Amino acid sequence: MNGWQATVLTIYPGMFPGPLGHALAGRALEAGRWRLDVIDIRAFATDRHRSVDDTPAGGGPGMVMKPDVVAAAIDAAAAGGIDRPRLLLTPRGRPLTQARVRELVEGPGAVLVCGRFEGVDERVVEARALEEVSIGDFVLSGGEIAAMVLLDACVRLLPGVMGAQASGSEESFENGLLEYPHYTRPQVWEGRPIPEVLVSGDHGRIARWRRAEAERITRERRPDLWAARAGGRIDNSQGFK
Amino acid sequence: MNGWQATVLTIYPGMFPGPLGHALAGRALEAGRWRLDVIDIRAFATDRHRSVDDTPAGGGPGMVMKPDVVAAAIDAAAAGGIDRPRLLLTPRGRPLTQARVRELVEGPGAVLVCGRFEGVDERVVEARALEEVSIGDFVLSGGEIAAMVLLDACVRLLPGVMGAQASGSEESFENGLLEYPHYTRPQVWEGRPIPEVLVSGDHGRIARWRRAEAERITRERRPDLWAARAGGRIDNSQGFK
Repeated sequence: MNGWQATVLTIYPGMFPGPLGHALAGRALEAGRWRLDVIDIRAFATDRHRSVDDTPAGGGPGMVMKPDVVAAAIDAAAAGGIDRPRLLLTPRGRPLTQARVRELVEGPGAVLVCGRFEGVDERVVEARALEEVSIGDFVLSGGEIAAMVLLDACVRLLPGVMGAQASGSEESFENGLLEYPHYTRPQVWEGRPIPEVLVSGDHGRIARWRRAEAERITRERRPDLWAARAGGRIDNSQGFK
Repeated sequence: MNGWQATVLTIYPGMFPGPLGHALAGRALEAGRWRLDVIDIRAFATDRHRSVDDTPAGGGPGMVMKPDVVAAAIDAAAAGGIDRPRLLLTPRGRPLTQARVRELVEGPGAVLVCGRFEGVDERVVEARALEEVSIGDFVLSGGEIAAMVLLDACVRLLPGVMGAQASGSEESFENGLLEYPHYTRPQVWEGRPIPEVLVSGDHGRIARWRRAEAERITRERRPDLWAARAGGRIDNSQGFK
């Protein structure tokens, strides 16, 4: 085993590993806890201009990624042997959730297709059963940074990666709430003291205060999360947001 | 004027520009359409170990970024002169939307604070009026890749960046709908034809089909977006999602 296996399909292979080569994810990559293969989609172009895109059927602005070229790149990634989920990063997808991240981490890895231009020919999505995933309600210039988001979210949860700093259970979303506020030294900074309860030494009071703050912040900032919690749907599963 | 000015505060300055140095954002950076300054938060540490973090008041796992060090870095970024929104990337924030991206693009730029560890001391958030922004309901190892997401979303909308390939008006979220499916040559691929309507040449039919498909996909994948549209709240403004 080579750890969790990520294969990224992109027309900008030089973007990787990029930020994933630093810090937590970078150290985990070096330690072999995950593996990153990058496939240049353009290597599968068949014409003399190495075209990966063409004009949209029916007209309209922009260009569409060619089905034959993208499918050939996906098939090359799949040829590795192990069956992994194949994800297409696109604003048209279902929103990524922490629950989906946890599922992916429990599997063998993922194949990530980074869309560019107007998107990928719909027939590839159907024929190769791509799971369309969105990281949020905004539009990026391509799927590459979205793929980095997904990989970073996954890699930090791999066994041994966070080590002693692991704190998964008290994080945002793990219990359907945003996290409570944090404080550290100095005790008073610019005239602002740390809330008294946090320096009281009373662990019961501290836990109650943190819970109440997490609930207050979630209600204020994320009425959608709060309503879903109240409705009993607190698992934050895929398609929820 | 040096174009739109982004200043990123991070303890991993080597991560930047990373993917933002490539493709659309990279070419725009080279052309001076935007400017990226990176400030190493650690340069503002005051002890001999150059500490940027300390243990959480009240106990618990992980470490918290020190208020004095982070505030000094923010003040250095602000010393540049022009007043820019100061954003903290954190899963506790309000969700980023395309509407907020458009607002930021119309301004002079942004100061982006990348949280690490358990987060930043809450007093800095208050004292420096940081706008807490989340890119989604998942947890990353730090704010750096989230900052890249936000910058990529902004930069592509700057004047002159997309040029002739601009297609903003038909994109996902711009009208409260996910985008319709795309197709390109070949006409038949792996036995799958392009939908007949798209090769009909009838522009009215094509427009109606695309609209119907966008509505169908939005209903199926994003009942939340669809419900907000139906309720007349289609501007997708901040805090909506």
